[in-house]
Amino acid sequence: MKIERSFALQERAKNRIPGLSQLLSKRPDMFSYGVWPAYYSKASGAEIWDLDDNRYIDMSIGGIGANILGYADPEVDEAVIDVVRKGSSSSLNCPEDVELADLLCELHPWAEKVRYTRSGGEAMTVAIRIARAYTGKDKVTFCGYHGWHDWYLSANLKSADALGEQLMPGLDPIGVPKALAGTAIPFVFNDSRRLREIVENDPDVGTIVIEPIRNEKPNEEFIETLRELQRRPNLCLIADEISAGFRLNKGGSHLLYGIEPDIAVFSKALGNGYPIAAVIGKSEVLESAQNTFISSTQWTERIGPTAALATLTKIIRENIPPHLVDIGGKVQEGWLEAAKRHKLEIEAGGIEPLSHFAIVHPQASELKALFIQEMLERGFLASTIFYAMYAHTADHVSSYLAAVDEAFAVLQNAIKNDNVKTLLKGRPSSAGFKRLN
Amino acid sequence: MKIERSFALQERAKNRIPGLSQLLSKRPDMFSYGVWPAYYSKASGAEIWDLDDNRYIDMSIGGIGANILGYADPEVDEAVIDVVRKGSSSSLNCPEDVELADLLCELHPWAEKVRYTRSGGEAMTVAIRIARAYTGKDKVTFCGYHGWHDWYLSANLKSADALGEQLMPGLDPIGVPKALAGTAIPFVFNDSRRLREIVENDPDVGTIVIEPIRNEKPNEEFIETLRELQRRPNLCLIADEISAGFRLNKGGSHLLYGIEPDIAVFSKALGNGYPIAAVIGKSEVLESAQNTFISSTQWTERIGPTAALATLTKIIRENIPPHLVDIGGKVQEGWLEAAKRHKLEIEAGGIEPLSHFAIVHPQASELKALFIQEMLERGFLASTIFYAMYAHTADHVSSYLAAVDEAFAVLQNAIKNDNVKTLLKGRPSSAGFKRLN
Repeated sequence: MKIERSFALQERAKNRIPGLSQLLSKRPDMFSYGVWPAYYSKASGAEIWDLDDNRYIDMSIGGIGANILGYADPEVDEAVIDVVRKGSSSSLNCPEDVELADLLCELHPWAEKVRYTRSGGEAMTVAIRIARAYTGKDKVTFCGYHGWHDWYLSANLKSADALGEQLMPGLDPIGVPKALAGTAIPFVFNDSRRLREIVENDPDVGTIVIEPIRNEKPNEEFIETLRELQRRPNLCLIADEISAGFRLNKGGSHLLYGIEPDIAVFSKALGNGYPIAAVIGKSEVLESAQNTFISSTQWTERIGPTAALATLTKIIRENIPPHLVDIGGKVQEGWLEAAKRHKLEIEAGGIEPLSHFAIVHPQASELKALFIQEMLERGFLASTIFYAMYAHTADHVSSYLAAVDEAFAVLQNAIKNDNVKTLLKGRPSSAGFKRLN
Repeated sequence: MKIERSFALQERAKNRIPGLSQLLSKRPDMFSYGVWPAYYSKASGAEIWDLDDNRYIDMSIGGIGANILGYADPEVDEAVIDVVRKGSSSSLNCPEDVELADLLCELHPWAEKVRYTRSGGEAMTVAIRIARAYTGKDKVTFCGYHGWHDWYLSANLKSADALGEQLMPGLDPIGVPKALAGTAIPFVFNDSRRLREIVENDPDVGTIVIEPIRNEKPNEEFIETLRELQRRPNLCLIADEISAGFRLNKGGSHLLYGIEPDIAVFSKALGNGYPIAAVIGKSEVLESAQNTFISSTQWTERIGPTAALATLTKIIRENIPPHLVDIGGKVQEGWLEAAKRHKLEIEAGGIEPLSHFAIVHPQASELKALFIQEMLERGFLASTIFYAMYAHTADHVSSYLAAVDEAFAVLQNAIKNDNVKTLLKGRPSSAGFKRLN
C-alpha cells in the first residue's frame, strides 16, 4: 500500500498549514506520520479513497463524529445540491432557518428559540455570551470538553492543568487574556458535592456547562443536584450536545435523563459534515441575546440548515441511534475479546457510538502506531477510536474485527519479541488530546 | 407587489429566531418591516425571488458583501457540487486546504502560513489568540469593525460608547466578562498620534488591528507610523480584510498601500457565499498557534476551500475588482446627481464597491423606509447601502438609477407635503448598526 501522493502533499502542507489540519484530531501525527494517508480524494458510505487511489473502509473517527450517516449521503447531498442551484446565499434570509428551528424545538419541547453558527466551538461561545447576558454573572462552572475559545481555556490560567481532569491534559492557555483567570471553574462529571459547593459559595457563578453524558452516565444524585441548582435565580444550565447529540436518541442526550437545560448546543452530527451548529433555548434566555451583539455574515447561508434538516429527517425516519449503539457495542466487545485472546491489556470505553480503547503498556504510543499500520495494510482506516456511522454494516464490523484480531496478534508478538519500534514504518502516535485516546 | 408568504414566514420566525436573522444587517427591521420580503426562494446573478415569486434586481447589500461574483455563480457552484459528490467531509483532510493556502500566499508574498475557520468573526478571534500567543501581551489596540466576539466588544466595558467612534454606536457589551475591561483600546483610523501614544505608553499592548481602508484611505503618516511601530519587539499587526479584501485589487487592500501586516484575515467575498474564512500570516507568527489550542471539526470540511479556490480563480482571471469599482462609482455618482436634482440632502461615501449614503433629515429613518418601499415597487431590492457584484451590469445600474430618480422625487414630495409617515406601508428603518447606514 503506497501513499506517495498523500505523503507528498503532507510534506508540502508542512510549509503552509501549522499541524497540517485545522483539527487536532485529524493531524496525521495523531495516528502515525508516514503511514497515515491524511488526505482523501473521494468518500462514499463507509469508504474513503486516498490520493493514491487506495480504498479503505473507515473504521476510525467517522469525520470525527460529523458524518453520522456516512460519507456523501445521497439524501442530504441532493437537498444541498438543490439549494446550491437555487442560490446558497443572498441578501435575504433562507426559509430553511425557520424550518430547522421548528424541528429542533419539536424534538426538544422545553426549547422555544434557536440561533445558528457554523462551528461547534463558536456556538458554545454564543451560548456562554447569552448565559452571561441573561444571568448578569460572568463566572462559569463546567465539566467536559467545550472547544478552543477563551472562555473555556481560561480554566487553565488559574492552575496549570485544571483541564487535565477533563481529559484534556497539557492544554496551554497561551494567548488567553490573563484577566480571565478564575472565570471558568471546572468540576468533575457526577461530582455533585463539588458542583454544589462552587455554585453555592460563589455568587458570581451564574452558568453551569455540562456534557450530559461522557464516558459514564449522569447518576441520579447529579441529575437531582442540577435540578435543585436550576431553581436558584439567575442560574443558566447549558447542555453541550456537540458530541453526544443524535447518537443515543433522536435529539440531545439530556432528554434521556430528564435533564431540562436552559440552553442546548448541537453541531457535528447535525449537518452530516456540512458546517452548521445550533444553540436552542428557552425563549426568555435566548431573547437576552437581543441585548447583546451576536451577528455574523456566514451564519446566514443556506447549506447549513438545509443539510441539518435532511440529516435529522433521515435520523428520525430510519431510527438511526439504535443502529449506532448496536454497531459501536459490537466493536467494543470485539476489541475486548480480541485483546483477551492475544493477552493484550486494553481499556475500552465511551458511549457505544463514540467508542475508544487504550493499550495499557509502557510503549502505548508505539503500539498504537503499529496497530494503525497493520490495519491500513488490511484496508482499514482505524485507530484507537471508533465512531459509528449509519453506513457501517454488520459485514464491515465482522471483517474489521477479523483484521483487529490479526493486528492484535502482531502487537502481542512484537511485545514478546521486544521489536515494536523496528516494525514501525511511521512515527509513534502523538498523545496530544487525551480524551481521544 | 404582495409579500404574503414572505411576511407570514417573518411572523412565524418571530416565535423562533431572535431578530429573525443570524445577522443584524439582514433583519427586516433594518430595512422596513412589513414591506421588506426578508426571505428568498431563489437567487441567480443579480436577481432574487421572494417566497411570493416576486422577482427583484438586487441593488442592496449583495449578500452583505459575501456574493462578490453574484448569486449561484455557475463556476463556483460546479466546483462545489463536484466535491459534494466526492464527499464533502471525511476522517481525512481535503487537498483543497493546501491548494488554497498556496494561492493565498502567492497573492500575498509576505505571508507563508494559513489557517481556516468558517466565519469572519471567529477568524478574527483566531488571529487575536495567535497574536497574543506570539507577543505574550494581552492588550490589543484597534480601529474599525471586527465582529461580535468578546475581545472586541470588551472595548465598550471601559467607556460606555468607545465603539461609537468606530461607527458602532450603542453596542452594549452585556455578557462580555467585565475582567476584560481595558484589554481592547480603540483609536480612530488615520489618527497616528493617538495610535503611537497607546503603543508607546502601555507595554502590555502587543497587537494593532486595522481595517486597512474604510471610508477613507490610509494616509502616508499612518502607513509610516504602522511601519515604525512594527519595528518594536513583540508587536503584531493584524489587517482585517473581511470587508475590503478582493474588491479593490486581487488580494487584501493592504497590498495597495505598502502595508505589510503580520497577519491578514479574509472571509465574506472569499467564498462567494459559502462559509469560509482564512487567517494568513508570517510563518513565525502563525506557528505560535502550535503552542496554543485552536481546533474545530467544522473547519475541516471541503466546500469552504473549494468555493474559495473557484472564487479567487474567477476574480483573478476576469480581473473583477475594476468592475466593482466602476459599478460602485457610477452608483455613488448617480445617488448624488439624483439627490441634487430633487434637492434632497444626502451624504454618500465608502469605497466604491461598498457604497452607502445617508439622508440628512430629521425624519431619516422614515425617509429611508419610504425609499426602500418605492424601490421595491419598482422591482429593486435597495436600501442606503449598495455592495457591487460582478453580476451587476451597466444596464442594471442605469435602470436602478432611473428608479432612484423616481423614488427621490417621491421622497422630496413627501417632505414638502409633510406626509412621509402616512405614505409608509411598513415600519421606519431601525438604526441599529450605524456603519451600515
